[in-house]
Amino acid sequence: MVDKKLSGAGLRGQSAGETALCTVGKSGSGLTYCGYDVSDLADNATFEEVAYLLFNGELPTAAQLDSYKSELMVLRDLPPALKKVLQLIPADAHPMDVMRTGCSFLGNLEPENDFSTQHQAANRLLAAFPAIMCYWYKFSHDGVEIDCVTDEDSIGGHFLKLLNGTSPSAQHRRVMDVSLILYAEHEFNASTFTARVCASTLSDMYSCITGAIGSLRGPLHGGANEAAMEMIQKFSSPADAKEQMAGMLARKEKIMGFGHAIYRESDPRNVIIKAWSEKLAHEFGDTSLYDISVACEEYMWDTKKLFCNADFFHASAYHFMGIPTKLFTPIFVCSRLTGWAAHVMEQRANNRIIRPSADYVGAEPRKVVPISER
Amino acid sequence: MVDKKLSGAGLRGQSAGETALCTVGKSGSGLTYCGYDVSDLADNATFEEVAYLLFNGELPTAAQLDSYKSELMVLRDLPPALKKVLQLIPADAHPMDVMRTGCSFLGNLEPENDFSTQHQAANRLLAAFPAIMCYWYKFSHDGVEIDCVTDEDSIGGHFLKLLNGTSPSAQHRRVMDVSLILYAEHEFNASTFTARVCASTLSDMYSCITGAIGSLRGPLHGGANEAAMEMIQKFSSPADAKEQMAGMLARKEKIMGFGHAIYRESDPRNVIIKAWSEKLAHEFGDTSLYDISVACEEYMWDTKKLFCNADFFHASAYHFMGIPTKLFTPIFVCSRLTGWAAHVMEQRANNRIIRPSADYVGAEPRKVVPISER
Repeated sequence: MVDKKLSGAGLRGQSAGETALCTVGKSGSGLTYCGYDVSDLADNATFEEVAYLLFNGELPTAAQLDSYKSELMVLRDLPPALKKVLQLIPADAHPMDVMRTGCSFLGNLEPENDFSTQHQAANRLLAAFPAIMCYWYKFSHDGVEIDCVTDEDSIGGHFLKLLNGTSPSAQHRRVMDVSLILYAEHEFNASTFTARVCASTLSDMYSCITGAIGSLRGPLHGGANEAAMEMIQKFSSPADAKEQMAGMLARKEKIMGFGHAIYRESDPRNVIIKAWSEKLAHEFGDTSLYDISVACEEYMWDTKKLFCNADFFHASAYHFMGIPTKLFTPIFVCSRLTGWAAHVMEQRANNRIIRPSADYVGAEPRKVVPISER
Repeated sequence: MVDKKLSGAGLRGQSAGETALCTVGKSGSGLTYCGYDVSDLADNATFEEVAYLLFNGELPTAAQLDSYKSELMVLRDLPPALKKVLQLIPADAHPMDVMRTGCSFLGNLEPENDFSTQHQAANRLLAAFPAIMCYWYKFSHDGVEIDCVTDEDSIGGHFLKLLNGTSPSAQHRRVMDVSLILYAEHEFNASTFTARVCASTLSDMYSCITGAIGSLRGPLHGGANEAAMEMIQKFSSPADAKEQMAGMLARKEKIMGFGHAIYRESDPRNVIIKAWSEKLAHEFGDTSLYDISVACEEYMWDTKKLFCNADFFHASAYHFMGIPTKLFTPIFVCSRLTGWAAHVMEQRANNRIIRPSADYVGAEPRKVVPISER
């Protein structure tokens, strides 16, 4: 077997397989799911329709969507043993560790024993993730054991009601829906690729998703919206934002929420979430965080020609809806699960184990010296 | 960015990075860890020396080894919350789901907050995995809450004492040690590559190892020794083995424990574990399972020119030591953790996020049709 030397590290720009799920950064339409532009989906579909699309390749009819939403609603409650596990996780745990553990533990109780049940496993996680996140959060932070079932018929609305205990406004419901659509899928990013490598050993759905959560946890992947939130909260005004950002750039500090590994000119998701952030700011009655975010966007473009990615205006949008910053990346999990699971199914349908080679740069052959002589 | 089309799926034969840890299948010495032939290590070192080698690049002196073994011994006990979680996992759970969940849960309690503590995190898992496996096994199967601390100073001996409640024989201790050495490291296999992809997002050690366990769980990766055990237990004699294998081959059934994705002529680990299996058979006082295994080896070579891989004689060896078949792959975890963690450290030391591209084979651009018109 001959090893081929690839240009560059990290497999950047190297094809690792085929997908019918997504294009990223192609000219004309920046991001498509199964052929649909993400902005078309954000304007004209719901998150459940997008999940159905990713899992089945086609958008549902009205009857199929009704049936799918009903199916998801009955899968929301958590088993008592999982609730006990979540109660054992301290309040200062990393919320992504909680998601990873909740997913992994559920795999013990409800294993995907046969790939013929892969849709059920994916739907179970899609329905249960908001409760895994909120049950742990409310128990560890407020000492409250929440009811994991609500009457909200959308995943976004369900999450907001679990978190706040009250029914969300129609606008909040819709923004959560759009946000979940925007984060749903993004081709062979590191967490999705993790899921596909795991799937390629013919492991189960829970293992694949657990592994993907672990990769999304890394600060080079998920978490940029949390970092953006922490930054903009420190700015008192648009003018202060520009002044402080100038200092950050001068000190070569990393500024999160700008630029992208694949997109070169803009992130097609930014314009969508930015418009919603502005609407939420007016509903919130205090637009300062939005105005500060706009100042940041202008400043980064003017000085560095760096554009906002999907994460930047998500920070203010989530904040206006009362979502704690530490739950931003777990919400990403609730959304991206759809892409991960779709990629697992796609990998299984045409599988070969993913097992690359490595270039050896280590010690020459040598003999073990007896420990008494070392 | 131009996507390069690679020959073949699954990145086979494609370099995905550099490593100083391992060579596989190079002529002259089939498998080396940091320059040392695996058979040299199996003859002249202990598993703790190999763990130290993989984590530090050099074998320890006698003083360093004593210090390292003492350090590991005090890291063996499990936190009460982790024991409670393991108690909540039913006896019929997949043992690899237990390992994955135990690792993930521990990450909530003892997070690796800073890469400067990466050795501690790896050592903690190395010390704790035998107890995670045995505590769950003994509680769920026998209703016994075992003490997770023993006076055995090696990881192999500690595992056997946790499992059986009695001190192992010197030979059993040594065979476990050799087995853990043989499984410790194997370059960019799928589980190790999973760990490196996760590490490349700068995620934490627990996420990387949790993801790797999920990949090792897949039947195309770990689990071959369990499948080999299930097969040889069905054979009543060497002659029966050959007759039944002929039938399996005629029915095109998959026979596990033979051949390898990388090795072409033999697996250098087989001759080592085979010799130990023979010794254990004589100690056991009934060599029939060993004799049957030899007959299988002869038959597969004579008819298919397929050689035994590392897994095949591990089945009988583990069986002679009284290890339940369902724990075979979790033992693999206890060993391979060393390779995984070493690769995580290596990836971090020269990191670029692993984010390949994909060839798009999906739907052409299309417009969302309103749901009322679908």
